[in-house]
Amino acid sequence: MSILIKDSIIVTQNVSNEIIRGDIYIEDNKIVEIGKINIEADFVIRNRIVIPGLINMHTHLPMTLLRGYGDDLPLEEWLTTRIWPIEAKLKAEHIAIGTKLAFMEMVRSGTTCCNDMYFFEDVIANEAKKFGIRCYAGFSLIDFDTPEMKRECLPSECENFIKKWKNDELVEPVVAPHSTYACSPETLQKAKEIAEKYNCFIHIHCSETRYEVYDVLNKYGKRPLQQIKDNGLLTEKTMLAHCGWITKEEVKEIALANACVIHNPVSNMKLATGGYTPLPELMEANAIITLGTDGAASNNKLDMFETMKFTALIHKHHRWDASIVKAQEVLDMATVNPAGFLELNAGCIEEGKLADIVCIDYKAPNLTPLHNVISHLVYAMDAHNVSDVIINGKLILHERKFLNIDEEKVYEEAEKAKEDLLSE
Amino acid sequence: MSILIKDSIIVTQNVSNEIIRGDIYIEDNKIVEIGKINIEADFVIRNRIVIPGLINMHTHLPMTLLRGYGDDLPLEEWLTTRIWPIEAKLKAEHIAIGTKLAFMEMVRSGTTCCNDMYFFEDVIANEAKKFGIRCYAGFSLIDFDTPEMKRECLPSECENFIKKWKNDELVEPVVAPHSTYACSPETLQKAKEIAEKYNCFIHIHCSETRYEVYDVLNKYGKRPLQQIKDNGLLTEKTMLAHCGWITKEEVKEIALANACVIHNPVSNMKLATGGYTPLPELMEANAIITLGTDGAASNNKLDMFETMKFTALIHKHHRWDASIVKAQEVLDMATVNPAGFLELNAGCIEEGKLADIVCIDYKAPNLTPLHNVISHLVYAMDAHNVSDVIINGKLILHERKFLNIDEEKVYEEAEKAKEDLLSE
Repeated sequence: MSILIKDSIIVTQNVSNEIIRGDIYIEDNKIVEIGKINIEADFVIRNRIVIPGLINMHTHLPMTLLRGYGDDLPLEEWLTTRIWPIEAKLKAEHIAIGTKLAFMEMVRSGTTCCNDMYFFEDVIANEAKKFGIRCYAGFSLIDFDTPEMKRECLPSECENFIKKWKNDELVEPVVAPHSTYACSPETLQKAKEIAEKYNCFIHIHCSETRYEVYDVLNKYGKRPLQQIKDNGLLTEKTMLAHCGWITKEEVKEIALANACVIHNPVSNMKLATGGYTPLPELMEANAIITLGTDGAASNNKLDMFETMKFTALIHKHHRWDASIVKAQEVLDMATVNPAGFLELNAGCIEEGKLADIVCIDYKAPNLTPLHNVISHLVYAMDAHNVSDVIINGKLILHERKFLNIDEEKVYEEAEKAKEDLLSE
Repeated sequence: MSILIKDSIIVTQNVSNEIIRGDIYIEDNKIVEIGKINIEADFVIRNRIVIPGLINMHTHLPMTLLRGYGDDLPLEEWLTTRIWPIEAKLKAEHIAIGTKLAFMEMVRSGTTCCNDMYFFEDVIANEAKKFGIRCYAGFSLIDFDTPEMKRECLPSECENFIKKWKNDELVEPVVAPHSTYACSPETLQKAKEIAEKYNCFIHIHCSETRYEVYDVLNKYGKRPLQQIKDNGLLTEKTMLAHCGWITKEEVKEIALANACVIHNPVSNMKLATGGYTPLPELMEANAIITLGTDGAASNNKLDMFETMKFTALIHKHHRWDASIVKAQEVLDMATVNPAGFLELNAGCIEEGKLADIVCIDYKAPNLTPLHNVISHLVYAMDAHNVSDVIINGKLILHERKFLNIDEEKVYEEAEKAKEDLLSE
């Protein structure tokens, strides 16, 4: 497939943060040329703001099926009376439809790559491949039986999962020990062993709630990050979701290890986890900061534009300082920062990069007039300003329509899956 | 014009918060019938979530022209180096185009009524009438010359403005003394006199920033709310924008006076004004709470769905309590609360009410599956899920297109106005 994007405003996100007016030519899965281009192509797109595809670094994709099922409840009640009873009923077919729905929502709102962690991760990986989206697929290790299998099967199945997906073009297998409160030291060490053996990324929840910090402190005499470190999991391959209750010392530890922080402001605020992922301190320490939506049950969207706005605003508000986190810095957290950490040849628009690209139709009331493109991306976007999405050189969304998906059918199947999960 | 909405989920927002499946028939400017209806109509709309139009209670409409012009700056620097120098250049033609753009953005995101405060308010009122949107138009009284006229002309021109618009079907003139820091006691008293004479609503900024509170305290020996009260402006016709820095005593005063609080969380957070409009205390005191976006220069959108989500989340987060402000309560703040305060025969969907109605196309990834309509409205909506908007019985937006506006022309004119304002 070849695609020509003409007469557009290109937010390159290259090292100089250049914004250029011009054309982009894409062939196979790469950006071949940027400039003034006259060439035939299978698809021609015109007059757009063009940005690198956004990277959503913390998702539980199939939880779209639980969107709006139990809001406004205290965390404990939400988990025990709503989420866990339904999750226990999950079967592979539910996972498949919930995941497809999540991909649609993410692509619709400009996301081209996600970093997931859930059960039935092989089903999720299969859906990603079918859909054509880039997916870091985290196989969960946890000290409970999952809806998919007995706990004792998890490590060996994790290895099988990694072997199956290790060289896929779109799916990258990730080892995902759930957290220090749901994994014993033995499980954490097993995760480390597997991750090292196959050179995998590690995805783990860390200090999401104050309760969690004190729970782990009581059980093991140390805070979650120390527990992660002492079990060999604080490495330059480690992605730490949340970090809402980390200390200044822990900020330094994370930066020193070149681990990656995933900030999920919308989910944290909605679940009232308290605390503030200390963005200014993490930035000061040159830590790698990225963003995620978390699952749709606690967000309740998978919209990275919204997440970028919440990120900027919550920290300005908290520090009484409108300049503390700037639009450009937030956009970096959703593009170049995660791409750099993941060693993904994307996250910016340059010749030779993977063609993971989002086109925005800026002839819209909320994007007019155009004083500052970066400001619009972070503060003024609606998901539906996105018109076209290209992943790995393939046009997935064109003029706001999915090229290869029967949308109505997905909505019907998702409703059916919901009914099925709610029935006795 | 007659409109029939068929086979829809109707969020009535009536006293029992009923959600019913059925049809709505609209004729002239009223909701004639709700139920199972078979009748011919000029327009038929099918299979929607139908809600009362949202009411945006604090806007500075023409500031759309300054959207994204100076973000991430401390408030003082933002005002003195960005906003005020541009505002000084504003002419009637800029106001007209900026206002039209604001109406498009608001309608596109489900707003059918706004409460504005700016300069050139007669131009704004004219645009509202032409556009067909309901507008409470606040004529600003302030102790400076405005871009429109000398300060000494303001009171008499305010009276002329009120006389001109007093009996309009869509526009309601409002007296808008800017604030206690920009209005002397004499100006506040003049505002009171005019508002009483013509039985007008009063719209005033109150305790937006900590600086403002101490500034007024230093100058007059009392806090802004006391200054408002002592000058006769704390009445059941008074709308207090922001209230981010009010005390528990002031909460009681406001509730006792039956005045209305307008909470603007997005703008407050973006400008880093600090403080928290004390929603739980205001709710406890049975105060009238409503929501606004503020101007597009500080938001940078005019999207009430986004404002509802921010409202719920900021207070959950601040109080470490996911149940402290619930979706239904937030939806009320954008519909029945302001309608009740304004004595507007709208804000809910009942026979005999004004037909200010928004239709939402819920066949969308972000609104699937449908566990809970109210949750979706507050936590999962995108502006562009709105498909049709009816104001005063007229269909303004149909299948996501404006029926009587050349959209491209507005965008072009807005860009031209921007260029004009930026040129020397």
